[in-house]
Amino acid sequence: MTSDYLSKLNAFLDQHSYGSRPPELYEPIYYTMSMGGKRMRPLLCLLAYSLYRDNYEKALPAAAAVEVFHNFTLLHDDIMDQAPLRRGKPTVHERWSTPVAILSGDVMMVKAYDLLLDLDHRHPVPLIRKFNVTAAEVCEGQQIDMNFEQRATVSVEEYLDMIKLKTAVLLGYSLWSGAFLAGASHRDCDTLYDLGVAMGIGFQLTDDLLDVFADQAKFGKQVGGDIISNKKTYLLIRALEDASEAQKKNMQSWLEQKEFDKAVKVEAVTQIYKELGIEEKTRSLISSYFDKAFNLASHLQVNSETSLVLRNYMEELIGRDH
Amino acid sequence: MTSDYLSKLNAFLDQHSYGSRPPELYEPIYYTMSMGGKRMRPLLCLLAYSLYRDNYEKALPAAAAVEVFHNFTLLHDDIMDQAPLRRGKPTVHERWSTPVAILSGDVMMVKAYDLLLDLDHRHPVPLIRKFNVTAAEVCEGQQIDMNFEQRATVSVEEYLDMIKLKTAVLLGYSLWSGAFLAGASHRDCDTLYDLGVAMGIGFQLTDDLLDVFADQAKFGKQVGGDIISNKKTYLLIRALEDASEAQKKNMQSWLEQKEFDKAVKVEAVTQIYKELGIEEKTRSLISSYFDKAFNLASHLQVNSETSLVLRNYMEELIGRDH
Repeated sequence: MTSDYLSKLNAFLDQHSYGSRPPELYEPIYYTMSMGGKRMRPLLCLLAYSLYRDNYEKALPAAAAVEVFHNFTLLHDDIMDQAPLRRGKPTVHERWSTPVAILSGDVMMVKAYDLLLDLDHRHPVPLIRKFNVTAAEVCEGQQIDMNFEQRATVSVEEYLDMIKLKTAVLLGYSLWSGAFLAGASHRDCDTLYDLGVAMGIGFQLTDDLLDVFADQAKFGKQVGGDIISNKKTYLLIRALEDASEAQKKNMQSWLEQKEFDKAVKVEAVTQIYKELGIEEKTRSLISSYFDKAFNLASHLQVNSETSLVLRNYMEELIGRDH
Repeated sequence: MTSDYLSKLNAFLDQHSYGSRPPELYEPIYYTMSMGGKRMRPLLCLLAYSLYRDNYEKALPAAAAVEVFHNFTLLHDDIMDQAPLRRGKPTVHERWSTPVAILSGDVMMVKAYDLLLDLDHRHPVPLIRKFNVTAAEVCEGQQIDMNFEQRATVSVEEYLDMIKLKTAVLLGYSLWSGAFLAGASHRDCDTLYDLGVAMGIGFQLTDDLLDVFADQAKFGKQVGGDIISNKKTYLLIRALEDASEAQKKNMQSWLEQKEFDKAVKVEAVTQIYKELGIEEKTRSLISSYFDKAFNLASHLQVNSETSLVLRNYMEELIGRDH
């Protein structure tokens, strides 16, 4: 049911001009934007708009703005994480260079603001103001995530706060901006923002879960990648909190081991997760966030027929197994 | 005469809050902003505003925005150039790390937009739209400058176009935004923009000139630094264009030499510049840009008394010898 939205969005993105000269600056933007992805953020923006008005084409520049901003953060994050690949393709800093990746990312952020101005809305200031708050929070989340890598322990609370900033607030803004553009009430705008944040946290926790418990046949990446790299995911943090002394010692020894057989490590750590019921605990936490999101959706001042497309899309995101 | 402006601007910048948590993200912004500098761009913004209205305090957020943006570009440029020092202090990527420098630069750009919104002006869209155009051009200029490093030859025309983008357009925008905020006519806004661009090109050419022909006692950096690093400045480009075959051969051998005595190279290349009259040619070109700027100033629809502070400040910038 979202295919109409997606095809109009992709048509809009495909025909959008970011600039051309010098090519080293602009080609990485077209390259990054053409990598695809789920387009979750812009779709949420358009679906929120459609709750209140018919002509969702009017919100396409806002939808494109959040997608361009999101892709800008991926581009810069990949430099910071020294990631060689993104969606199976060489990252910009690998294919071009780090200076090019920094600079084309910078100009991409400018282009996100340009798209917000293209809306020609009567109230651009609150739209951009909240975008700024969100953009700063996403940067804060990324910095906190990098800080976690240097720390021995992270609490569940700290972790949830980090993924809220790094991932969830942009989903909140995407929904908020669509509703705001359509002239929804403040209350509905705020409800949709909270809905997006709850969805975003549930979504990131699902990412963490799938990394360990996905079906390898359906999963695009290697199952267990986070275990191999000692990534501080919800699963690891929760397991360390819940572990007995013996289990903790066992986990610590895997975390500290410099040389190991990857498959053996993944199996061993997964085994501890199973003993501790981490899969169930994570699924339960995810459900609580998704339940919250659906509960918020039911409080919107729209009829249930109108909100069906949004609710179906939420179901789709929730049900993913890869 | 600009000291009142400068002290109010610095007071505004000193009390401005960019954010605080996590400290790794925000401390580099305070660090960068406290390094000082000439504050040329924000002063131009305030002086342009003062041509049309008295209460220039109203334009302080716009002045701060261009200064924050300028410092953001320095922060990211220093990563790209792998510069260890900025104004005698360790650069952000040296003192913290490259990821921190990328990310705090990103959030700094967001904060520049925030300052533009703080103005609460009736027409924020044209103000931000032109800021976006300028910001993208500054990135384009930086990329073209990096491209020049990889090229054997660069023409004078290409070089002037690069410094226009990398340096001059932001001076143009600074003046333009001040006038725009004060409600100046379109014609005056555009005239001030052109004036800033002409000043900016003249200013960058002065930088190039001083690197070779400054009085070492007054000059903060090492005289001849650009010669040592083979930087493609106006002086080098013009010299290569004007040189005889013998002089060209001599210059090329210095450009290709991997090991050399720095003082000997600086003296040898300076000698060729002298033979070719490069100092005079550069001074003449600089004068043509500054003359253009003063000519544009005389076309503004303000009385000569009102424009005295701006013209005095332009004289001050023009007359610098360090």
